[in-house]
Amino acid sequence: MPTPAQITALVANALAEDIGAGDVTTQAVIDSATTATAVMLAKARGVLCGIDVAREAFRQVDPTIVFNAKLADGATLAGEREVIAEIHGPAAGILMGERVALNFLQRMSGIATVSALYAAAVRDTNARVVDTRKTTPGLRVLEKYAVRVGGAFNHRYGLSDGILIKDNHIAAAGSITEAVRRAKANAHHLLKIEVEAKQIEQVQEALAAGADVIMLDNMDHATMRMAVALIGRQAITEASGGVTLATITEIAFTGVDLISVGALTHSAPSLDISLDITVQ
Amino acid sequence: MPTPAQITALVANALAEDIGAGDVTTQAVIDSATTATAVMLAKARGVLCGIDVAREAFRQVDPTIVFNAKLADGATLAGEREVIAEIHGPAAGILMGERVALNFLQRMSGIATVSALYAAAVRDTNARVVDTRKTTPGLRVLEKYAVRVGGAFNHRYGLSDGILIKDNHIAAAGSITEAVRRAKANAHHLLKIEVEAKQIEQVQEALAAGADVIMLDNMDHATMRMAVALIGRQAITEASGGVTLATITEIAFTGVDLISVGALTHSAPSLDISLDITVQ
Amino acid sequence: MPTPAQITALVANALAEDIGAGDVTTQAVIDSATTATAVMLAKARGVLCGIDVAREAFRQVDPTIVFNAKLADGATLAGEREVIAEIHGPAAGILMGERVALNFLQRMSGIATVSALYAAAVRDTNARVVDTRKTTPGLRVLEKYAVRVGGAFNHRYGLSDGILIKDNHIAAAGSITEAVRRAKANAHHLLKIEVEAKQIEQVQEALAAGADVIMLDNMDHATMRMAVALIGRQAITEASGGVTLATITEIAFTGVDLISVGALTHSAPSLDISLDITVQ
Amino acid sequence: MPTPAQITALVANALAEDIGAGDVTTQAVIDSATTATAVMLAKARGVLCGIDVAREAFRQVDPTIVFNAKLADGATLAGEREVIAEIHGPAAGILMGERVALNFLQRMSGIATVSALYAAAVRDTNARVVDTRKTTPGLRVLEKYAVRVGGAFNHRYGLSDGILIKDNHIAAAGSITEAVRRAKANAHHLLKIEVEAKQIEQVQEALAAGADVIMLDNMDHATMRMAVALIGRQAITEASGGVTLATITEIAFTGVDLISVGALTHSAPSLDISLDITVQ
Amino acid sequence: MPTPAQITALVANALAEDIGAGDVTTQAVIDSATTATAVMLAKARGVLCGIDVAREAFRQVDPTIVFNAKLADGATLAGEREVIAEIHGPAAGILMGERVALNFLQRMSGIATVSALYAAAVRDTNARVVDTRKTTPGLRVLEKYAVRVGGAFNHRYGLSDGILIKDNHIAAAGSITEAVRRAKANAHHLLKIEVEAKQIEQVQEALAAGADVIMLDNMDHATMRMAVALIGRQAITEASGGVTLATITEIAFTGVDLISVGALTHSAPSLDISLDITVQ
Amino acid sequence: MPTPAQITALVANALAEDIGAGDVTTQAVIDSATTATAVMLAKARGVLCGIDVAREAFRQVDPTIVFNAKLADGATLAGEREVIAEIHGPAAGILMGERVALNFLQRMSGIATVSALYAAAVRDTNARVVDTRKTTPGLRVLEKYAVRVGGAFNHRYGLSDGILIKDNHIAAAGSITEAVRRAKANAHHLLKIEVEAKQIEQVQEALAAGADVIMLDNMDHATMRMAVALIGRQAITEASGGVTLATITEIAFTGVDLISVGALTHSAPSLDISLDITVQ
Repeated sequence: MPTPAQITALVANALAEDIGAGDVTTQAVIDSATTATAVMLAKARGVLCGIDVAREAFRQVDPTIVFNAKLADGATLAGEREVIAEIHGPAAGILMGERVALNFLQRMSGIATVSALYAAAVRDTNARVVDTRKTTPGLRVLEKYAVRVGGAFNHRYGLSDGILIKDNHIAAAGSITEAVRRAKANAHHLLKIEVEAKQIEQVQEALAAGADVIMLDNMDHATMRMAVALIGRQAITEASGGVTLATITEIAFTGVDLISVGALTHSAPSLDISLDITVQ
Repeated sequence: MPTPAQITALVANALAEDIGAGDVTTQAVIDSATTATAVMLAKARGVLCGIDVAREAFRQVDPTIVFNAKLADGATLAGEREVIAEIHGPAAGILMGERVALNFLQRMSGIATVSALYAAAVRDTNARVVDTRKTTPGLRVLEKYAVRVGGAFNHRYGLSDGILIKDNHIAAAGSITEAVRRAKANAHHLLKIEVEAKQIEQVQEALAAGADVIMLDNMDHATMRMAVALIGRQAITEASGGVTLATITEIAFTGVDLISVGALTHSAPSLDISLDITVQ
Repeated sequence: MPTPAQITALVANALAEDIGAGDVTTQAVIDSATTATAVMLAKARGVLCGIDVAREAFRQVDPTIVFNAKLADGATLAGEREVIAEIHGPAAGILMGERVALNFLQRMSGIATVSALYAAAVRDTNARVVDTRKTTPGLRVLEKYAVRVGGAFNHRYGLSDGILIKDNHIAAAGSITEAVRRAKANAHHLLKIEVEAKQIEQVQEALAAGADVIMLDNMDHATMRMAVALIGRQAITEASGGVTLATITEIAFTGVDLISVGALTHSAPSLDISLDITVQ
Repeated sequence: MPTPAQITALVANALAEDIGAGDVTTQAVIDSATTATAVMLAKARGVLCGIDVAREAFRQVDPTIVFNAKLADGATLAGEREVIAEIHGPAAGILMGERVALNFLQRMSGIATVSALYAAAVRDTNARVVDTRKTTPGLRVLEKYAVRVGGAFNHRYGLSDGILIKDNHIAAAGSITEAVRRAKANAHHLLKIEVEAKQIEQVQEALAAGADVIMLDNMDHATMRMAVALIGRQAITEASGGVTLATITEIAFTGVDLISVGALTHSAPSLDISLDITVQ
Repeated sequence: MPTPAQITALVANALAEDIGAGDVTTQAVIDSATTATAVMLAKARGVLCGIDVAREAFRQVDPTIVFNAKLADGATLAGEREVIAEIHGPAAGILMGERVALNFLQRMSGIATVSALYAAAVRDTNARVVDTRKTTPGLRVLEKYAVRVGGAFNHRYGLSDGILIKDNHIAAAGSITEAVRRAKANAHHLLKIEVEAKQIEQVQEALAAGADVIMLDNMDHATMRMAVALIGRQAITEASGGVTLATITEIAFTGVDLISVGALTHSAPSLDISLDITVQ
Repeated sequence: MPTPAQITALVANALAEDIGAGDVTTQAVIDSATTATAVMLAKARGVLCGIDVAREAFRQVDPTIVFNAKLADGATLAGEREVIAEIHGPAAGILMGERVALNFLQRMSGIATVSALYAAAVRDTNARVVDTRKTTPGLRVLEKYAVRVGGAFNHRYGLSDGILIKDNHIAAAGSITEAVRRAKANAHHLLKIEVEAKQIEQVQEALAAGADVIMLDNMDHATMRMAVALIGRQAITEASGGVTLATITEIAFTGVDLISVGALTHSAPSLDISLDITVQ
């Protein structure tokens, strides 16, 4: 879960961006005494995510707005105008907060929904679907949370909480062996070391160097299977590169532990959720 | 174009998010004297957008990195590893800036690419494709810029630079007539007034009230054509609601002036761009 | 109305500026258990503005302070120590918040008062008094609100919510005609286009180009009357340049729709309001 | 002098406020290759203040703009279109920075000009004109600098750099004697202690208590003269309350050391300065 | 006392630093419904300081946590697991806030404890122990408060609330006499002037120039005694330079008014305080 | 190494804190044309750390100041006024930046020095000295860097880059076995799992559960030796609790891999470094 401080800051930033100097329509047209009731509805099938963020958007616009969630994060949405939340309070505030609340909720639910699809595709295997750092700049904490809500798993959060030695790190260090040696010498003891391998020889070198995790990068399925067999239980295996819903199940059956999918976050379409407002 | 101050702040925020306490891999593995050359490559067809943002990401990580753009925003990318930019400098800096630079560039290019597709679909009509406020929280200034780079147009930026009277504003005011009257009385004189209409009767009322723009919301094409005919040159017309690439051309042929498409920003998939680094 | 977030941030900034490392007098002299009652008094005639900002100043210093407003924004102040608000709570907090609360309230009320004077001077005409961008850096949202509270109107808020083509834009574009053409082609459809004209020929060109609003800049009254007659109902007219209380009525009788007055915000003197505190 | 960091932050905030999502006029109308030359002109007599702030405004908008100051802060402006600075560079940047640069410069020069008037009025006396804390929220560091540039002097900056025991502090402490005792006991040794006195008896008590400075608050001139005589060289004297240009000289002749004038900052009208731009 | 706004900001910054993207252990291991009770215990003798900061740390992590202080700032801690506060609420929140709360409390109590030791060492003299600007960057407001809580006194807060003319200022001005003259001419009237003197001749010049405070810098005790005698009651005296607990009493007996000790803040060891948590 | 952005922000915050509204002494006394040369000197033996931070402090105050480092971070300082850096430029800027530069440098060098002492004490063993989260709020990135510069190692940075299951997590989960199971199930695959054990039975359970690292918390040396023997190469071992310079060598000889020492950061005294300025 994102912390309250993280949610507060992200929502404040989004509201400032949208409202700018003020909501000219609402200020001109809506009487401040007018109240409204609103129903937040799912108009597509998917997985709900972002209820606390949506609630915070309305709270910041007007703390007297009451936001009653009918569903919790992780709920399976049937679409068909399923009720997610009921909201009532000053009409002006509800109208001013609507778009920001939905922008967060639709994006987060979109990611949770895609994540659930990928997770379902490997359900009968031992593989876990994991995300990547290909997230929206500034929203990573929300998007990685949405991945988990959808039933997939997180890879490292960013550059500071996991060692991932890629081809360029290897080239700079001279060899996988030397790169791993440096990582063990210099990084703290609670970080595992993952090494990117494109060929079987690299897998062997990574294993010998003591890598904790080996990323099988853009390997064909046959090579991947060979790599998994070679590694056995000596290291965790991660399949990476061009994974789609069409290919993930077959990849999972190679026996890898993890399959990383950038598309969970970088290309998830927004989930269709809307707000029906009744002015009183 | 986003201002330099806007770009600087967005990039700083994204780098802080990704780097956190530090890039443990690079710090452990890469010698600070190691230099590298990198080539930024388009691996898919599309429209390039975000060069200045990518440049800024590398500059903030290490101002000694040289970033030579080979293409400008708006360039049509053929894919096939077309070179977008060449970069050289300290390997550590290039590796630390890579992901953030790409996250911005891929997202912005994805939006420009989708926008170009929609714009092409109405090329032989009088209609313009416009975006919505369904943007990523915090990134609106970049996303609306990407829409323009792709050849589509912007709707209002946010709640403060355009009056858009929706059904709920109308309900709160009592009628379209009253809502428009209040807007004219209270809002400043450089803002036009747009009114959402779902039926022909509402179009007529909006026209009579003096709306500058009439949004034809979720109308079937026949009704839309009737509305356009009714309005003539008395107001600008905007088609809205559930527009897709499959339907937009037919909508454009109804004669509307503008067609707003939330999918330009809320569901554009990331464009495949990568960085090939050669350590020296 | 400024949003709660805007008020909170402006007040926090002002308090930090005034309190710095701490209120050395109050900390040294006042026992934290001492309470006080205070009365906020108008010592001059004018229009009250800024009650919510003043309340927020005391709230941030000490949330246990009770602030009872006796008058609302827009109230006509008779001076003569008319009571604006009653405050009670810890003496230390009241003393620490006093100056910031008054600095906002006096400035905002000063602007509302001047705005009311200008509005009164055109009361029997069709003209509206509007403000400019000549506001105090950082306080625009409060000052434009004060203008409205005083009974005048707002011009555009800033550079992003209205198109105002001035002489230099015209020079850069080559002609009024070309400048308006570019604005229509590039700006979004909810922004009207205002063109600055100094002579009748420019008025004619602006009209022909399709300007929505024509600024009659520094014209003598005879020329202005001619321009208004020429324009008729084809565009909104705005008189601008060197308007004073002595000249505004005559300008209004030229028939212009709007008269912009920089002095509403850039030179409004502070209204005399004070706080009488009784320590208990 | 404000520090570079203070100027940078204030200008950035003002530009963000004015530009918002972007300068729609300039973006729509001005070709980015167009350059311009501009002359900043004084159109009224006064004292110049704020050159570094104006320079920074253009620098932040576009660092390629060249700003050549022809006059320095403190220069006496003859009005009559006297040249303050010459500016050249991209037309778009000059147009975007113009208003913010002028808003600062006009306000600061306005304060310097009023301060110079008050300073001149006491020129032949021993009194110094000092400012108050009645400054614009957020701009104190600039406004107090403008006071000095105009030839007047600063009182304490805020609540943390000087002890000023007012009537309410006295009431809370029980007596002047007790309030001064607490201040001496609790505040650090580099802060002098000023006590507000409304009557001769309070002056006597403050003197006996060891006040370093005695504020003669709203005393008639006869009483003030008596107080000054009583105090002699035992304490610094400050006249306060309702001082105007009409009364200050006579007040100064009472022999007080300091005369504080809120109007230096809270009611100084903006000085008329403009920018003449020639597009190339 | 630090203001609520200062405490809120410092705690938010510290929590963001410690929690980063999230507390992975707590999120993985602790059920959100689990509650706990915790006791904050002093494990060493000293002076308590920072209760409000510790409370705020838990409040920001989870506002439902109840924090009952059993002791107030300034309490003498006997060590031996003396109870400082009792805390109960969600276990996850208590675990996430623990380290930040303790880091503040231990540092502030460490400074209060050292300050109390120094204050005790001069108890039977007329001297006051004062702090310096050798504080932890960013925490000065807390550390100077801790000094007072421990029974010592504050020197000026920073560069803006006291004039301290050091050897380099003297060299730049040409002489003590000239430096003091400039300070009197330019600085505001509520700031006293302190001059650093290393030799008796400098003391004499400072006295003659009218210094309010004379810092006896790195003088041997005999010279210091001579300086104190020379100065009499004409100026406040401050001993400075290399003061330790071993030497301070003897320094105090030279008759100086103030003894400044950098070690109060720059080298105070953390006080041993811990949190015993009982999960329910 | 802290990133440039981290250093810039920390220095800006510290300068704002120290300078406040302005350096009244320097502004009053120093002519802006006066230049100076300064030498930064080590007056005590130790390890240098923080050169880039000190350089940034002078740069922010005045970018024309030239800062020539004579020694690099990690240099062994002999004391005896060894020259660390030479600085020249405007005297006012050097005086304004001095204290902040030294406050950072002395603190960081103090930590590096203490870290070097602890590292030396285990030099002939296989143990590494590691730090803790007991750092100064807000300065962790600098302090953890100083630990490495001194030759010791870092533990996890904060709550997000390492799993450390302490007694309370165990109590909340029910058992070590269950806590480790949850951590494996929920946390990402690049984080190792450390478990706190106070007794041999807990060591055995942690081992069986698959802990990667076992913290031997407050064990006597005999028990610790037994635990190390029991664990063998199955997990990394960390000794924790009350480690001092007097006890660390003996602890290291128990065969543990890591020894964590809170005193590296929470109680390191400032290293004596000063600036000798010669005004020209």
